[in-house]
Amino acid sequence: MKRNIYLKKKTLAEARAIASSELAKLIHLGSETIPVIHAVGRVTVEPLYARVSSPPFHCAAMDGIAVKAETTYGATEESPKSLFIDQEAFFINTGNPIPHGMDAVIMIEDVHLLDSGKVEIREAASPWQHVRAMGEDMIASEMAFPENHKITAYDVGALLASGLQKVKVKKKPRVSIIPTGSELLEPEQIRFNPTPLQPGFSPSGIIESNSYVLNGLVIEDGGEPIRHPIVKDDPQMIREAILSHYEDIDLILLIAGSSAGSEDYTRMIIEESGEVFVHGISIMPGKPTLIGRFKDRPMIGIPGYPVSAILAYEELVRPLLYQSLHLMKPERPKIKAFPTRKIPSKLGTEEFLRVKIGKSGEKFNITPLPRGSGSITSLTKADGIVRIPALSEGLNEDEATEVELLRPVKDIQNTIVMVGSHDLTLDILANLLGKFYPPIFLSSHSIGSLGGILAIKSGICHMAGLHLLDPETGEYNFPYINRYLEGIAVRVIHLVYREQGLILQQGNPKKITRLEDLFRRGVTFINRQKGSGTRILLDHTLKALSLEPDQIQGYEREEYTHMAVASAVAGGIADAGLGILSAARAMGLDFIPVAKERYDIAIPSIQFEDEKIQRMIEIIRSDEFKKVVFQMGGYDVSKTGEELT
Amino acid sequence: MKRNIYLKKKTLAEARAIASSELAKLIHLGSETIPVIHAVGRVTVEPLYARVSSPPFHCAAMDGIAVKAETTYGATEESPKSLFIDQEAFFINTGNPIPHGMDAVIMIEDVHLLDSGKVEIREAASPWQHVRAMGEDMIASEMAFPENHKITAYDVGALLASGLQKVKVKKKPRVSIIPTGSELLEPEQIRFNPTPLQPGFSPSGIIESNSYVLNGLVIEDGGEPIRHPIVKDDPQMIREAILSHYEDIDLILLIAGSSAGSEDYTRMIIEESGEVFVHGISIMPGKPTLIGRFKDRPMIGIPGYPVSAILAYEELVRPLLYQSLHLMKPERPKIKAFPTRKIPSKLGTEEFLRVKIGKSGEKFNITPLPRGSGSITSLTKADGIVRIPALSEGLNEDEATEVELLRPVKDIQNTIVMVGSHDLTLDILANLLGKFYPPIFLSSHSIGSLGGILAIKSGICHMAGLHLLDPETGEYNFPYINRYLEGIAVRVIHLVYREQGLILQQGNPKKITRLEDLFRRGVTFINRQKGSGTRILLDHTLKALSLEPDQIQGYEREEYTHMAVASAVAGGIADAGLGILSAARAMGLDFIPVAKERYDIAIPSIQFEDEKIQRMIEIIRSDEFKKVVFQMGGYDVSKTGEELT
Repeated sequence: MKRNIYLKKKTLAEARAIASSELAKLIHLGSETIPVIHAVGRVTVEPLYARVSSPPFHCAAMDGIAVKAETTYGATEESPKSLFIDQEAFFINTGNPIPHGMDAVIMIEDVHLLDSGKVEIREAASPWQHVRAMGEDMIASEMAFPENHKITAYDVGALLASGLQKVKVKKKPRVSIIPTGSELLEPEQIRFNPTPLQPGFSPSGIIESNSYVLNGLVIEDGGEPIRHPIVKDDPQMIREAILSHYEDIDLILLIAGSSAGSEDYTRMIIEESGEVFVHGISIMPGKPTLIGRFKDRPMIGIPGYPVSAILAYEELVRPLLYQSLHLMKPERPKIKAFPTRKIPSKLGTEEFLRVKIGKSGEKFNITPLPRGSGSITSLTKADGIVRIPALSEGLNEDEATEVELLRPVKDIQNTIVMVGSHDLTLDILANLLGKFYPPIFLSSHSIGSLGGILAIKSGICHMAGLHLLDPETGEYNFPYINRYLEGIAVRVIHLVYREQGLILQQGNPKKITRLEDLFRRGVTFINRQKGSGTRILLDHTLKALSLEPDQIQGYEREEYTHMAVASAVAGGIADAGLGILSAARAMGLDFIPVAKERYDIAIPSIQFEDEKIQRMIEIIRSDEFKKVVFQMGGYDVSKTGEELT
Repeated sequence: MKRNIYLKKKTLAEARAIASSELAKLIHLGSETIPVIHAVGRVTVEPLYARVSSPPFHCAAMDGIAVKAETTYGATEESPKSLFIDQEAFFINTGNPIPHGMDAVIMIEDVHLLDSGKVEIREAASPWQHVRAMGEDMIASEMAFPENHKITAYDVGALLASGLQKVKVKKKPRVSIIPTGSELLEPEQIRFNPTPLQPGFSPSGIIESNSYVLNGLVIEDGGEPIRHPIVKDDPQMIREAILSHYEDIDLILLIAGSSAGSEDYTRMIIEESGEVFVHGISIMPGKPTLIGRFKDRPMIGIPGYPVSAILAYEELVRPLLYQSLHLMKPERPKIKAFPTRKIPSKLGTEEFLRVKIGKSGEKFNITPLPRGSGSITSLTKADGIVRIPALSEGLNEDEATEVELLRPVKDIQNTIVMVGSHDLTLDILANLLGKFYPPIFLSSHSIGSLGGILAIKSGICHMAGLHLLDPETGEYNFPYINRYLEGIAVRVIHLVYREQGLILQQGNPKKITRLEDLFRRGVTFINRQKGSGTRILLDHTLKALSLEPDQIQGYEREEYTHMAVASAVAGGIADAGLGILSAARAMGLDFIPVAKERYDIAIPSIQFEDEKIQRMIEIIRSDEFKKVVFQMGGYDVSKTGEELT
């Protein structure tokens, strides 16, 4: 079995330098002549000279009469002068040419119409007053724009006004995007029953999506993508795919196959027909990136994991496209933000950490999203990216770090950061908040109820979702708030009562009917993490039944959300988990109720009057919210929105 | 003659509030279902739920073998275990499904192939190691995106991976753009001889360009523009133009005709068939903007001057489009910068001042561009916009002020700010600098040679262009540098020798042959501003001839550049002006040499080693630069690029 071994890994800076020299010199964009009115975003290939002046003649800058200044000399309030209309004075509107021989405009407000075909003026005009001189803005033959200039919508105005109707621009770089992998399916190969939703349905392969993401990014960067259909892991077919567009393209992106697996042929293909410059970059995600040329065409081997693919594109392909167009690569805005906890990172690898950003008080806090390269949602949900340098062992808690923003800072400021327990109704809430204009965003992090209380204590969130049963008193949430948040004033809004129970595989093949059945041999369980309300509920209930939790098989395997528990059950990782009815329903699973519990939102009093929070409470109290939640099943909304004390 | 009178003028904030309520409620965008792969930039109209989990099955996170963890228990370095291939161990590549019954992956590096159809392992696997669990990234039935979400290229990946192939999005707002004005010409109505350039050619009307600028801006803002051909100033024709698209559009932009001129019909038309909410906004440029409705369609009357048109669009139309799409309007990045001199502004009017920004040292300086609303180049050349509030009388010298950036700050940092005398070779220089990658920009402000020296003294530029003759010694530039820049070390690079002379109308109808002819009756002159090298040359030469300058008709009328002087002569404002040969040539004018002068670039020594400056000197010394300059005519490049001392 032949496997690849990476060349000596390069740093990102080294890889970029190689791309910028070895690949850039293979790209020769031609030019084309197109109408100015379609040229926004295109790049000039030669200096553009004005063909006419703007304005093209002396013209009135005001509505009024055009006169020859000389004929007005001597006019005063005491001794007005009268002028013959259409001989000495010509009515004129802004922008119209000054009649021949005239050299000044008197504003209409200062002109008095006499009956006898004359006007009267009471002040002399000075030569060229209220006249826009020919060429005032642009002079014929002047250089209007240099070469390598990216044409804006404003520029279209200047170009047309200077008499240019067509413009010679660089052709867009054509980028061939070739997804490879025998396990891949085209999106349209997946067929569903149109209705209803079929949860748990599992296609027979992985849906190919990377090529379409790159397609969109190439368009954003001013290129012209040409997507090739999926190619199987077969060197000959891959070679043919590359050659099929070879003559028409400027750059080849070959997705997947650049790793070290037995079916990774990219390197072999490039070595046969060209040259490999780089194989392996010390970044994460994005390590198995390859830089080379296939014959005379530059080629980048893009890793197959979605986040790796995007980072390889953004760090290597994007700079190359901008370089080929001779434009500066746009930079993302950056802010300083503070990790809410220590985030270790591997020494020797530059990591691109996707983060959520929350603003509480004057400070921006960051929380890392999943770090795996397979998690596309770690990018779609991210507010920003932190680059952890190769020579760093990670980020320290509360130490300022630079974040590249993926969302406008205003959106981040308009985001309510909710931390704590997870509930599906939070999606409903987020969706309804987004209907305001300007919208309010809700960002919720599932770290369990106790985690939420501690986040309030650290001041790193706007509110926390809690469902913490106090075993001593049977009371919800307040005992914990009183214990952990001494000295911090908190107000509590009740969200829902909800049904917790055992989530079981469809049809309940293991015949589980009560908690005691979890102890049966052959029954595997999936647990929630320590500090979550659900875990506390489980432990409390087991204790009340005098059962020892560590006898349950799978008790030590933890998930962070109800949906993750349901998904583990649906996927056969476990036979049962404790969670809410709505999660079981969403995945089409069986459910046996165990307890009804109270889920509240705790809001520090200093946040309470914030407009975002007030709007959110407004939504929680609305009939629309209650109605949608009720329809999900498993929820009691009879007291939803009430403030508890 | 019926003229309009503005309604009581509104502030911009008032006008916006009215648009946001009265106009926004008339816009009802429908929805359409489109393929996900074409949905980048579109806005969801309903929450989107994942149809499949991602990954859709448990799959290998590494290349290796899939095993059941149990079967590996007990394997150690000392007592390895062997497993039967395709029974107990299955070779697997990253992303492939875990075979039924298996629950862990062992990395290929840790697998030893034995001859007998077996592999050997030397460490036990733990359950679910190196396995990406089904739904790890997204779980079927989860809300993937809320409604009112703008889909990004990244999102396309998440949507496809979650089994969505089509998506319901808001229709783009359709914007009808109607240019009006009897003086307007369609761009293609202007006909030129293809070659050569015909300088001074003057069309019979104003080229209509506003509609195409707005067209580009509407596209950038996610709308769909529908441009109507030019409509003459005729109420009935304007009415018909509006009605021609009435059913298909969401917003009407009527360009020009909203002012107070006799042919301004917009208000009348709206009053007849709808309602005028605002007429006149206290902003500059942009005052004659009108907000109303025509029947049930929102309409904005856009002023006819190009800068006014753009500002009215950006301040009123753009927010409305974003509101209709339920998106936050993007904000331009802002920096703090410092005016290099006092800039007065009219009290009671909010002014949008277009500025050039220069960075010298750590400070950003701003210089205002022409403030008239007719100067489109004041926007195309601008680096930023300063909003001067209505209640301010202007900006004070050196007082920090906020600038909205129109160019990336990195471009501004990569810009050489040159101040002082004007020469056409600077365009050549700027163009060649733009060929570097990353490009260097040259921004030159024509304020005369003396102004350049004073700008060096104030530290607000990187260099100054000088051609200052010292009448006492006959020496160029150094006497002035020594006199004005005591204590500031400056290095001087020679640019060109150039021919100064009288620029005369084509064919020299006034038979001017020498400076003395300027004193003839009937001969008008156009002068350069005080402090310019050309003015000093003129005054010096006249003095040497014992002539009194104030006897010259037009001596007091000043222009700031050679091209402006040439344009004034070409346009008949004057019969003669003093300027350089290349300007006369560019405009096809006659020229009589008066003197050959030296034009140098003075660079403060502390700037000299800056990479931008070094690159510029490299260009000045290049054969390419000298060749192009020589071909312009009127230049001697024999010593170009030499450092003078």
